[in-house]
Amino acid sequence: MINFEVHILGCGSALPTTRHNQTSQVIDLRDKLYMIDCGEGTQLQMRKQKLKFARLNHIFISHLHGDHCFGLPGLISTMGMLGRTSSLTIHAPKELESLLRPQLDYFCKGMAYEVIFNPIDTTQHALVFQDKSVSVYSIPLNHHTPCCGFLFRETQPDRHLIRDMIDFYKIPIAKLKDVRAGEDYITEEGVTIPNSRLTHSGGVARSYAYCSDTAYAEKIIPLIENVDLLFHESTFLETEKPRAKETAHSTAKDAATIALKASVGQLIIGHFSARYDNEALFEEEAQRIFIHTHSVREGETITVQSKNADIHS
Amino acid sequence: MINFEVHILGCGSALPTTRHNQTSQVIDLRDKLYMIDCGEGTQLQMRKQKLKFARLNHIFISHLHGDHCFGLPGLISTMGMLGRTSSLTIHAPKELESLLRPQLDYFCKGMAYEVIFNPIDTTQHALVFQDKSVSVYSIPLNHHTPCCGFLFRETQPDRHLIRDMIDFYKIPIAKLKDVRAGEDYITEEGVTIPNSRLTHSGGVARSYAYCSDTAYAEKIIPLIENVDLLFHESTFLETEKPRAKETAHSTAKDAATIALKASVGQLIIGHFSARYDNEALFEEEAQRIFIHTHSVREGETITVQSKNADIHS
Repeated sequence: MINFEVHILGCGSALPTTRHNQTSQVIDLRDKLYMIDCGEGTQLQMRKQKLKFARLNHIFISHLHGDHCFGLPGLISTMGMLGRTSSLTIHAPKELESLLRPQLDYFCKGMAYEVIFNPIDTTQHALVFQDKSVSVYSIPLNHHTPCCGFLFRETQPDRHLIRDMIDFYKIPIAKLKDVRAGEDYITEEGVTIPNSRLTHSGGVARSYAYCSDTAYAEKIIPLIENVDLLFHESTFLETEKPRAKETAHSTAKDAATIALKASVGQLIIGHFSARYDNEALFEEEAQRIFIHTHSVREGETITVQSKNADIHS
Repeated sequence: MINFEVHILGCGSALPTTRHNQTSQVIDLRDKLYMIDCGEGTQLQMRKQKLKFARLNHIFISHLHGDHCFGLPGLISTMGMLGRTSSLTIHAPKELESLLRPQLDYFCKGMAYEVIFNPIDTTQHALVFQDKSVSVYSIPLNHHTPCCGFLFRETQPDRHLIRDMIDFYKIPIAKLKDVRAGEDYITEEGVTIPNSRLTHSGGVARSYAYCSDTAYAEKIIPLIENVDLLFHESTFLETEKPRAKETAHSTAKDAATIALKASVGQLIIGHFSARYDNEALFEEEAQRIFIHTHSVREGETITVQSKNADIHS
């Protein structure tokens, strides 16, 4: 199985504490790393979790609050000191470049790699980035500042060749790429061998949606429907519902309600307010609505599993 | 005894590791806190070491390399969220304001307290700041960017009244301030009572010098002569002397040589390069030159003790 994992580097909210770091996650997909948000201390969390800086080429920033981006100058600077030469792209609301560029020009002068800013329109659900492994789309959210989540859709994996059948039909190497992609094979005699005799499924393309920071927003449901794994912020418990509304954040119940209505496979929750010291309460509140919920912790790795895995082969 | 302590928040160098945080120290003097340098993650170290943000009103930045100031935006922002109203002064090379102000304007908009920048001329040995407890002077250093250390000179403590003698001479309350300050008392009959009959010493004024980052620089010796405690950077061991010269840093032997020549009371060393995993080697190398040397660690608190304590009373 191709790896598709979400590493939790920080799952606290605005105030970092000895309990929680500020927000950051790293998606590990087919051995490339994609970072979402980069609060202060993120570079240290990467080291603690043994995630290689060299494998990270894309960082996605949901919005311009300090707890989601104050770790960037340090991370960028460290990569420079480690001798990085390949470019790093930061996908973020457009104001970030004008805020960060003067700092990079001053503190990272002479660095051997380029930092590229790709401006995101947080009000649109649009393709932000694509490579051969994944397509990343923005998910407009409701927060006090322009903010979007990110939907990671894995590219459909190639089918697995059935070696005995490939040998039996003497399929030339030059044709294997098409067969892996799902095409039938036509023999020299003109006989069509259906692809299903030559391959097994390579697995279903999986999907992960990250939604933080946001008030309860049903508008996101069609955009994240049926994703295999959803991270939805859960800054508060229902007991602090008025505070959640005031600050444009969600409760555990809100997160679970979105997960249920969007029929996602699994829900993970985080972005916990510093006022709480028992994250189990979040899980309990959410599970009353959506049983497949898990409260994340720093250092945890969540595997993205197809919600329909057992009906595919 | 009035408290005068140095808290080590970070004693690594440019690359933060799981072993060491980036540079920051907090001086706790007469219950006020003064911070020197503020690498990424400093606010979290303050929490870990239970140092109260509200007691911190002055931050001194030695130079504008990221590992000495990338923690400022997060710290400033957190203080705002915690409801701070009293101003915070940052004493730093003048370029810091133009680099940091746009970020503060954007990320800390509407904060209820003011951040004041006091520009330092790092080329001068001059008074940077003074309050009733301490005078802080700049110490020009030799580094690849304008850089200065800081000399903290405690204000001479008031003398302690000898209660029995005060009562015996019936000294009025209005006169006690002068007596504490060391003045003799003249009775109504015109008799002079020497101060030494009325008071004990309140202790000697202590001093702490912080010198980082710097190449070996004998020019600092007269400026730090006889300080009670010296922190001198020791990024490398003598085995990496060429690398130390190239990067304008010091070895443990360099630090100890300065301490010896300046006749300081005690030496602490830090700013260890990420390449080392045994700080005892630094202490050993330095102690061969200057026995009263200690390699610091994150979380440690060093008490500043008068080097001449036993000859005063």
